[in-house]
Amino acid sequence: MAIPSEMNALLLTNDGYTTTPSGSVLEAMEPYVVPGRIAVPAPKPKQVLIKVSLASINPSDVMFIKGQYGQPRFVGQPAGFEGVGIVAAAGEDPAAQKMLGKRVAFATGYTNWGAWAEYAMAEASACIPLIDSVRDEDAAAMIVNPLTALAMFDIIREAGEKAFVLTAGASQLSKLIMGVARDEGYRPIAIVRRDDQIPLLKEAGAVHVLNAEAPDFASALKEVMKAEQPRIFLDAVTGPLAGAIFDAMPKGARWIVYGRMDLSTTPIVQPGQLIFMDKKIKGFWLVEWMRDTPIERKGLAVMEAQKRFSDGRWATDVTAVVPLVDAMARVPVELAKPNGKVFIKP
Amino acid sequence: MAIPSEMNALLLTNDGYTTTPSGSVLEAMEPYVVPGRIAVPAPKPKQVLIKVSLASINPSDVMFIKGQYGQPRFVGQPAGFEGVGIVAAAGEDPAAQKMLGKRVAFATGYTNWGAWAEYAMAEASACIPLIDSVRDEDAAAMIVNPLTALAMFDIIREAGEKAFVLTAGASQLSKLIMGVARDEGYRPIAIVRRDDQIPLLKEAGAVHVLNAEAPDFASALKEVMKAEQPRIFLDAVTGPLAGAIFDAMPKGARWIVYGRMDLSTTPIVQPGQLIFMDKKIKGFWLVEWMRDTPIERKGLAVMEAQKRFSDGRWATDVTAVVPLVDAMARVPVELAKPNGKVFIKP
Repeated sequence: MAIPSEMNALLLTNDGYTTTPSGSVLEAMEPYVVPGRIAVPAPKPKQVLIKVSLASINPSDVMFIKGQYGQPRFVGQPAGFEGVGIVAAAGEDPAAQKMLGKRVAFATGYTNWGAWAEYAMAEASACIPLIDSVRDEDAAAMIVNPLTALAMFDIIREAGEKAFVLTAGASQLSKLIMGVARDEGYRPIAIVRRDDQIPLLKEAGAVHVLNAEAPDFASALKEVMKAEQPRIFLDAVTGPLAGAIFDAMPKGARWIVYGRMDLSTTPIVQPGQLIFMDKKIKGFWLVEWMRDTPIERKGLAVMEAQKRFSDGRWATDVTAVVPLVDAMARVPVELAKPNGKVFIKP
Repeated sequence: MAIPSEMNALLLTNDGYTTTPSGSVLEAMEPYVVPGRIAVPAPKPKQVLIKVSLASINPSDVMFIKGQYGQPRFVGQPAGFEGVGIVAAAGEDPAAQKMLGKRVAFATGYTNWGAWAEYAMAEASACIPLIDSVRDEDAAAMIVNPLTALAMFDIIREAGEKAFVLTAGASQLSKLIMGVARDEGYRPIAIVRRDDQIPLLKEAGAVHVLNAEAPDFASALKEVMKAEQPRIFLDAVTGPLAGAIFDAMPKGARWIVYGRMDLSTTPIVQPGQLIFMDKKIKGFWLVEWMRDTPIERKGLAVMEAQKRFSDGRWATDVTAVVPLVDAMARVPVELAKPNGKVFIKP
């Protein structure tokens, strides 16, 4: 495969973090990335260079390019945490060499050479060689969401209660979790903001779907908490809604924050519950899970994800596949549509 | 010892919990307790009846009589969680019988027959036979604060960092913790609200004392956090001050709430810190520690507390000893004075 010396990419326009956070909506691409041409990088010993077939856009990508994610930006580097493609070049390390020519799902987290480009760089250890039965649309979103889903489902399983609560119920990630949960007899309670999401999520595995905008939300929440006694709360939203949900949960509740879509103040409504009801609040970050989890468990999760996408138990809902050349204008528009995932095609 | 059939006591005027929380200040006794005469109860098999010499008033007593503590009130029963006295009668169980005639520190938590009375009831297992060298003023406050101090110091020790933060730095409990901490080479950072508390707390073992009301508090806090890198935050206050302290703490910080003196909203200032900085929020409740901790560890803590009070490493600062007959009028006045403990003498 001939590798050009230059490529097209969407390049970060800022360093570090923002000083003016503005939420999880991508109002426009211009302030954060610009299209540009850049030298194709050469892989270090344990890295591979991937010719990108499809790159995904995750909520964490949006937070990252806006400077609101837990990793600093580097101006002039391509954005994009995740994608699928063919390994076009590899470092000298055997682990990298054996990836050459393979179709892989990859995450760029540690290299900072993003996937919104014709070529991306990844550690060989962050690549998953794919079986043919996995679609590109599933493969491009095979790591961030699916591994987060499986890792967080481990937390639910360890807590020992069948019922659990999710905010951002209609997200791809929530749907993946609910799929696994239903298969194993668990009882997801999904919180959404629109009535039309209710049937979709019941189909995806939710036992209850509550619309936080409904006038009777508070009483419906109270009733469901009483009946189901959920212990785990997987929260991508924070803010007053999340505070109210945690407040309504029973003894021993665990509020696990993994995203922050609402930038308004997040209250602990009754701190006394931490003392007298053994409630706890913590976070979840896939990067930390990757670092702290034994390799065997990670390997099992990767296999499980491929199997679920291959046999159709999981499927990625696609809102749009946007060509790289159209990305600046179209990505914000497509991301504003609900219920599916947006991809960039170099 | 002849036991009368009736006794004087301060009796709760309300059941259950309040619906209108009003903070940790005891503005008056009348809405919550009344002086009255009541039958002296007979001990059940594992209980003992104690002729009270001195009862203490803890912040948890105030929260309890106001209906803001994690245990329900029962109208007509005596208040008071803790005291010292002589065992005047005992149930038939050998553990209770062997306490007969002894001078004991006691906690009434499980019996709901409080210590603000001529006689109190306690489980034999919640009584500590005293060595003569322990003063009544120390013995009456031997359980709630000292065991909480030693239990919370275990948390600090396990966290592996020498520096830690305390709110309500001038409380008896904070002073006990700082005493242990200093002896073992730890570095307490005490947060207070008045400059005149600073020298007292440095003497009590604090390495830094910060006045939260000072104009340069935010920058002083930031500087101390940077220099000391404390991991544990023992918080009796909650509210915006506690939120700001947790926000300023470094990676891996643990916010441990054990009291709630400020009833205003408690914010999680940056929920992203839970995700990317591995920060966590939980509570501490002595009742739960008593239930979950091995008996040997509890025994060691009890011994340690007696030794520390006997040899003077710990001493209870006494604001006032108020006769039971004067309690209604004088207790709120004495509690409003800073830096010491108020006792009731039947």
